[in-house]
Amino acid sequence: MQDTHITLAHGNGGRLMRELIEQLFAKHLHNPTLNTQLDATTLPWSASQLVVTTDGFIVKPLEFSGGNIGSLAIHGTVNDLAVAGAKPLYITLNAFIEEGLEIAILERLIISMAQAAQQAGVSVVAGDTKVVQRGEGGGLYLATTGFGVRIATQSLDFSTIQAGDALLISGAVGNHGIAVMLAREQFGLRGDLQSDSACVFPLTEALLPFTGLRFMRDPTRGGLATVAHEISQATGHALVLEQPTIPIHDSVQTVCDMLGYDPLYLACEGRVVAVIAADQAEQALAIWKTLPQGQQAAIIGHVQTGYARVILRTALGGERLLEELEDDPLPRIC
Amino acid sequence: MQDTHITLAHGNGGRLMRELIEQLFAKHLHNPTLNTQLDATTLPWSASQLVVTTDGFIVKPLEFSGGNIGSLAIHGTVNDLAVAGAKPLYITLNAFIEEGLEIAILERLIISMAQAAQQAGVSVVAGDTKVVQRGEGGGLYLATTGFGVRIATQSLDFSTIQAGDALLISGAVGNHGIAVMLAREQFGLRGDLQSDSACVFPLTEALLPFTGLRFMRDPTRGGLATVAHEISQATGHALVLEQPTIPIHDSVQTVCDMLGYDPLYLACEGRVVAVIAADQAEQALAIWKTLPQGQQAAIIGHVQTGYARVILRTALGGERLLEELEDDPLPRIC
Repeated sequence: MQDTHITLAHGNGGRLMRELIEQLFAKHLHNPTLNTQLDATTLPWSASQLVVTTDGFIVKPLEFSGGNIGSLAIHGTVNDLAVAGAKPLYITLNAFIEEGLEIAILERLIISMAQAAQQAGVSVVAGDTKVVQRGEGGGLYLATTGFGVRIATQSLDFSTIQAGDALLISGAVGNHGIAVMLAREQFGLRGDLQSDSACVFPLTEALLPFTGLRFMRDPTRGGLATVAHEISQATGHALVLEQPTIPIHDSVQTVCDMLGYDPLYLACEGRVVAVIAADQAEQALAIWKTLPQGQQAAIIGHVQTGYARVILRTALGGERLLEELEDDPLPRIC
Repeated sequence: MQDTHITLAHGNGGRLMRELIEQLFAKHLHNPTLNTQLDATTLPWSASQLVVTTDGFIVKPLEFSGGNIGSLAIHGTVNDLAVAGAKPLYITLNAFIEEGLEIAILERLIISMAQAAQQAGVSVVAGDTKVVQRGEGGGLYLATTGFGVRIATQSLDFSTIQAGDALLISGAVGNHGIAVMLAREQFGLRGDLQSDSACVFPLTEALLPFTGLRFMRDPTRGGLATVAHEISQATGHALVLEQPTIPIHDSVQTVCDMLGYDPLYLACEGRVVAVIAADQAEQALAIWKTLPQGQQAAIIGHVQTGYARVILRTALGGERLLEELEDDPLPRIC
């Protein structure tokens, strides 16, 4: 491309938009089903169930340690399919690009997106770009819609959760939130902490053989505490979290202590929370621990009869209620 | 909802976001497949081909005569499915909401979206909301992904177009672009001109029985001239447009003359351009004219052997080349 920065003319439907799409997006995201000349694409489909999800991404800054908005947009969407018991197959992509964005940055983000898609085994099959005026966007906002085929045989929804079920998490919480925060110069902090952003399909696929698997979710916005509240509210049961068992990296805890954040409310982008029958929890945990992404997996709590609330049991045996998230601890995190 | 304006807390994954989704989005867009508690939804699917499209919407202002960003986001996406020979079935929705947006306005837009979806026969099956800080958005940006089932038996792509084929348009051009422009106070103009924004599926479905139907497209960003260029470049043939036959409302032409716009480059959001074998063109036109949306349909040109270019033949028999769009005549029109 001749230009170094995005102009409004890159969004007008004419020659420059075509060049932007062909020389940047399609160049890196090409695959047999992506045809930039057509407004819609036809995909072969043999399964009887289609699993669909959609997600928007407004992370600031666009790049952070361990990822960027491009890889995040792929991971966030394939992960929503994975926790629904589906194998992710296809992605559509919307880009809202702010006038003035450096094209070299945009290309880096697209390359990262292409790599994440390849690693996750998904193809970007359709896309759209819009350019907004300078001062009316955040550099780049992305929206991705993912579709996959259901491979779970369990129903995997809240209604199957029973009192006594165990709660598992696949790894340490809060890394993504803190990694994005450290990338914001306003905090004046530095660290080598990386986002956990990753495709969780290997983790979810590994649990599907368990007949006692009830439900899975990736704890993104609002973190583990918010997933716990969702489970509690949907089931009417209490959720008990055992604080000492929740994996939290020292570096995450240190930054949280300094700034007054609670890591239980911070976004992860590569973790899975699973609810599973108590008698299968240890075996499920053992399987997760054999996977590279699951080495710090842990059983962190259980579902308890009684009214809906989230209880955090501390190392000393004390209990406190985890409130539902109200104020945003870190806006624009995903 | 208690609040009157969107705050960052409406985007944080917690209680206020849940209220926003349940009390505004799900309230109006509810249907049996929409489940706001799940990150992904499972759809029954019996067809062997899945047609997918995605589109972003940044129109400014959010409301204009004849529509708004909500109805537009439905029409734009179902129309891309329709011109691909598909019957639109499902939509996913992403909303990027700017902090400070009045909730009453947001509700109006969602209601309009729900009405447009109902009229088009599609269900909104999944959605996501993100809130961006004040000054980092345009009030509301939407991205919609549409899924449909292919009902066309023709292949409907550029490769089937032959020299001699006729070009049809289903109605007058430029109305959407001018309606949005008139809604911008900066121009100091008023008029009762309405956007043509509508679902074109009745128009596209009506042409599917024609064995000579080669290709359809809705002339949105860049207008009719840009569709003509796309056809010309993809086929390597010249496209001849007969200027006197192109339907343009007097009010659109008047505003264009005043401000120096060419209506052939302005966006439509409820028109179809079709390429069809010359010997079936009159019959196809007659069918379109029986439909409410096709009463001003016309045969406006043909495909001609020779190198790729777009020729406009004037009333006096003169010819001029229509350039490919470079500068954006009207940014943020769709």
